[in-house]
Amino acid sequence: MAETSTRSSLSRYLDGQFCDFKDRLRQEISHCELFKSSSYDLTLDETRDLTVERLHFVIKLPEIRRHLKDQVKERQKAFICKSMGITEVICTADAATGVKMGVVCGLYGGAITNLGSPEQTEKWYWPVTELEFTGMFAMTERGHGSNVRGILTEARYDPTSQEFIINTPCNDAMKMYIGNAMKGNYASVFAQLILNGECQGPHCFIVPIRDQQGAMYPGVQAIDMKHKEGLHGVDNGILVFNSVRIPRENLLGKFGSVSPDGTYHSPIQNKSRRFNAMLAALTPTRLALTVQAMAAMKLGLIIAVRYSHSRRQFGPKDQEEVKIIEHQTQYLRLMPHLAAALALTFTTRFAGEMLDDALFHGRDLMSRRTLQALIAGLKAYSTWQNLACLQDCRECTGGMGFMMENRIPALKCDSDVFVTFEGDNVVMLQVVVRELLTQYTRQFESGAMFGLLKNWSSSASDSLRTSFLGFSVDKVGDLVFLLKAVSYRERVLQRSLAARLYTKVEKNKNEFFGAWNSCLHHVTCLALAHIHRVTLEQFALAVQACRVKADQTLLSKFCLLHGTSLVYQERAWYLEHRYLTPSSSRMIRTQLLDLCKSVKDDSLKVVSDFNIPSCCVQAPIAGVANPRAEWAFYSSPQHPVQGPPKTPSKL
Amino acid sequence: MAETSTRSSLSRYLDGQFCDFKDRLRQEISHCELFKSSSYDLTLDETRDLTVERLHFVIKLPEIRRHLKDQVKERQKAFICKSMGITEVICTADAATGVKMGVVCGLYGGAITNLGSPEQTEKWYWPVTELEFTGMFAMTERGHGSNVRGILTEARYDPTSQEFIINTPCNDAMKMYIGNAMKGNYASVFAQLILNGECQGPHCFIVPIRDQQGAMYPGVQAIDMKHKEGLHGVDNGILVFNSVRIPRENLLGKFGSVSPDGTYHSPIQNKSRRFNAMLAALTPTRLALTVQAMAAMKLGLIIAVRYSHSRRQFGPKDQEEVKIIEHQTQYLRLMPHLAAALALTFTTRFAGEMLDDALFHGRDLMSRRTLQALIAGLKAYSTWQNLACLQDCRECTGGMGFMMENRIPALKCDSDVFVTFEGDNVVMLQVVVRELLTQYTRQFESGAMFGLLKNWSSSASDSLRTSFLGFSVDKVGDLVFLLKAVSYRERVLQRSLAARLYTKVEKNKNEFFGAWNSCLHHVTCLALAHIHRVTLEQFALAVQACRVKADQTLLSKFCLLHGTSLVYQERAWYLEHRYLTPSSSRMIRTQLLDLCKSVKDDSLKVVSDFNIPSCCVQAPIAGVANPRAEWAFYSSPQHPVQGPPKTPSKL
Repeated sequence: MAETSTRSSLSRYLDGQFCDFKDRLRQEISHCELFKSSSYDLTLDETRDLTVERLHFVIKLPEIRRHLKDQVKERQKAFICKSMGITEVICTADAATGVKMGVVCGLYGGAITNLGSPEQTEKWYWPVTELEFTGMFAMTERGHGSNVRGILTEARYDPTSQEFIINTPCNDAMKMYIGNAMKGNYASVFAQLILNGECQGPHCFIVPIRDQQGAMYPGVQAIDMKHKEGLHGVDNGILVFNSVRIPRENLLGKFGSVSPDGTYHSPIQNKSRRFNAMLAALTPTRLALTVQAMAAMKLGLIIAVRYSHSRRQFGPKDQEEVKIIEHQTQYLRLMPHLAAALALTFTTRFAGEMLDDALFHGRDLMSRRTLQALIAGLKAYSTWQNLACLQDCRECTGGMGFMMENRIPALKCDSDVFVTFEGDNVVMLQVVVRELLTQYTRQFESGAMFGLLKNWSSSASDSLRTSFLGFSVDKVGDLVFLLKAVSYRERVLQRSLAARLYTKVEKNKNEFFGAWNSCLHHVTCLALAHIHRVTLEQFALAVQACRVKADQTLLSKFCLLHGTSLVYQERAWYLEHRYLTPSSSRMIRTQLLDLCKSVKDDSLKVVSDFNIPSCCVQAPIAGVANPRAEWAFYSSPQHPVQGPPKTPSKL
Repeated sequence: MAETSTRSSLSRYLDGQFCDFKDRLRQEISHCELFKSSSYDLTLDETRDLTVERLHFVIKLPEIRRHLKDQVKERQKAFICKSMGITEVICTADAATGVKMGVVCGLYGGAITNLGSPEQTEKWYWPVTELEFTGMFAMTERGHGSNVRGILTEARYDPTSQEFIINTPCNDAMKMYIGNAMKGNYASVFAQLILNGECQGPHCFIVPIRDQQGAMYPGVQAIDMKHKEGLHGVDNGILVFNSVRIPRENLLGKFGSVSPDGTYHSPIQNKSRRFNAMLAALTPTRLALTVQAMAAMKLGLIIAVRYSHSRRQFGPKDQEEVKIIEHQTQYLRLMPHLAAALALTFTTRFAGEMLDDALFHGRDLMSRRTLQALIAGLKAYSTWQNLACLQDCRECTGGMGFMMENRIPALKCDSDVFVTFEGDNVVMLQVVVRELLTQYTRQFESGAMFGLLKNWSSSASDSLRTSFLGFSVDKVGDLVFLLKAVSYRERVLQRSLAARLYTKVEKNKNEFFGAWNSCLHHVTCLALAHIHRVTLEQFALAVQACRVKADQTLLSKFCLLHGTSLVYQERAWYLEHRYLTPSSSRMIRTQLLDLCKSVKDDSLKVVSDFNIPSCCVQAPIAGVANPRAEWAFYSSPQHPVQGPPKTPSKL
């Protein structure tokens, strides 16, 4: 990591508003013994203990503690963006620590601060920032993960004692995969609220799990789930409640409360809307996952790009072998991921700012459909993109990339779960489309779901296209062409999906679930098309906003590459819709190859400008010496890897 | 696993010729304590020790020992096919044991039996089958993995003592990733043979590493590489030779020998051809990797398909939730992999038979270009296909698929290295194309590499197409259409690549490496197109040859699915070449969706007919109870998982 004073302009631009804050955090981590070595040779228990220590270290940092307390107090401007900065830096150092912090502060803390009263926050979250205890978040059950609405855990109100009785009625109701379940003290538990035998839908309760000495609360059982593919530092477990009694005050009552006599009150009458409102409060945590995935991508790319510029293999006859980055297959695999990592950098920033804006002005997150769609879609796109990126990084570093010392395997294994947790990606894409379709029908000012769709035919998309066709074939290299292409695709997919659903449901009277299910492939295509479009737009805007000419030129190449890569991936669709001709489709491929080649030498500068300290990079093949694996060391090409910065302006 | 007597006809058909032999081996493994539990919670040393025990157990089985001794003795009919059967069964039980057996018997043993004399085999391989010692295979170096020809380890002949002096001249010459390096006794080491200062290219030498008590041979150093992403049971290490002296008799001399006075003799004068001949001897091991990848795919699919038929989530309003296999996105992700696993079953059998035929008739493997291309390409295709399959299995099983108990994580991590070891896949694809182009130019009876290409224009492909265009659009569902399509694609890619290379090298006088490199993307497309075509053809032939009507019907559906999926993946190319019209391309997509839906219920039968014993399946979500993870158990849907078979006809 460069010292603050010597940081390149591009590196500051990529870090954004909290650039200096992130740097101070990186310095603290670089100086901390706990982050000095990787943990892949520790036992499960040792890894978990180390993660706890790391988390304590982070929370104890004065600037972090102040930030967490801000969450509790009044609304802060740019609170989310700053949180995302913290998430990125912590996850770069250790994904498990980042996830554990996400569980304790983002999920447990977020549930309390968003669903509870100030008194409840004071009681159950403030002490977390004082390191007095930690919490966990118990929503998912064995039988209901994606379909959370169907959870089976019960919370029956007993007016005589003014208590809720939390109970696990069957195996499928066990709270599963709960992070921090083997160490945490309190859980925010989602359960069906039952009053006088009537179910009011899921609500969130604070249930004591174990005291600070580890003694379990009566009726609570925690089962260790032990070994996972990755994130070994996170202690996932199962919670089982055997008629656990908790006081009435433990219901987080923002969207539904119970009076002493058992009367129910809620500002939202519709049960489904009520539950959506509760879930909306968790949106920031979902965005944090995108940041985590992006952090993993950046790490993988630093390692793979540096090694590709060091290692040589094959070459012209009787000459020195070439650097492997020179192989067409190598730059073709790595460069589009680098462009995507940049696109994600700017798009998550955009989403964070929108979220901050909404929260700061006290707006109802649930009604911000565009934002909900964006964040759900970004979660799916970024986590899949990350896995594809890391897999290519692994393959592009050959056998070296299979060795734990070189960090890529752990990055892969840790982040693999991101694609299915906190909302399975396939479900996330359906959330995106649900929001898009609602917006869409609203646009026609019709109350009915399929409002004005009746008169549509599939040829409707033609009128849409003509408005874009003001380009000649030789313009495929134009960013404007690419922006129009991704936008066109989104709109056509949206219209045709709406038309298909209309036909199935309204005309043919098919049952909705079946109709929707038969369009799922279409749904996922539309959702990703939406996100593709937004990432390209945000990347283009960020290029425009860049003040340093040289940086702007560099970024614009990667932006063009990102757009080209998006259109290339979907060229079959464009050909099917005659948006590309066969020859323009071939030109897209040529352009992709040319762009990848043209940025391969810039890639060293870009990964260096990710500004990740060597204690986080770790990999000897990326120039970070490790006495345990001298055989893996390749000195860093061109841009030397710097040690921790010298200016110790403490957090 | 079903008892032999009750095995379904399809399951016997899938197992092939050595069906009963494989069953006996499965029984032995099912009864063996060593394979009773998984090893993910052991330390690295414990895992390695367990793997050694497992390997000893396997080699000690009378039928296996007899088979290994057959390798030493005369040429056996169907030796390769039987070996592949063993590989599949062992790898299904534990990939590390399979890989370790591959190192000791396939690579070390294969080097000696193929490159050495009968006396050398007697001395250095026979004792392996008697469990007296084990061996390793030392080809890859730190600086040269893919480009093995450039290895730097030296073997200088000293005529005074009649010894070779094996030396590691620099760090890049260290022998790296060597399996069994921390436990094995002898290594077959590839080194540049130097006689009187003149280099004769790489040759293979037997170098003692350590004696049975573990004492190192003078001058040999072994460095433990320790932790990897997977295959923890395989002890990979680094070998460094400090002027190690070995007797002249330790050169495996089939393709090059040295007389006592230091005179060199070889049946092949050209150094490059000589080295190719040595490498060709290792072809069977490469095919074994395809079998290993296929075994992992089958395991992943059993687990994901069974769970998808058990677990329910979402559904029509007010009705029971549906099995997740009913979701379009679920069957669309899993069914094409199941079809590919079947295609690989028949294609590896075909390759094994070709190899057996060639070896039995004592033919020179190097000159069997079709076979070399097929095996190199199959290695790349199958190992990538396996990773994609396991990743989808992981995602389709959600959080459960992330838990080690459910086996998918270990399958992924173990088999991840397959894509880069024993020939990086990208390099393998280049081997395929080198062979295809050589065949191609030969077809025009021209000696020159680019013989008759001069008169070609890119429009040449049109004449090729017309011969296929005897179909109307509504025939895309026809297997014949699909077969023609994949064949057409291969031929056009081949012609156009040849033309491009001709233009670059012959006309524009570009240097060959640069010209080839600028076509690498084209090269990889052609190589995969070749393999796609062969897998579809072999699948189609296997359907034709199936005698049981019901099985034939079932297989033909999956065959159609495999072909549809291959064409769907490449539909952009077909559209670019106007082989598909936009509307026929859409029909391909509809057909893919319909076929996946139509086979989803058959999938339970197919995975059951993979006939894998529950001690190998292990996953509780696939119906195999595990007291350590009761929470993960889902009883097996429809087809019950059977215990080990009752008829203990010992091996």
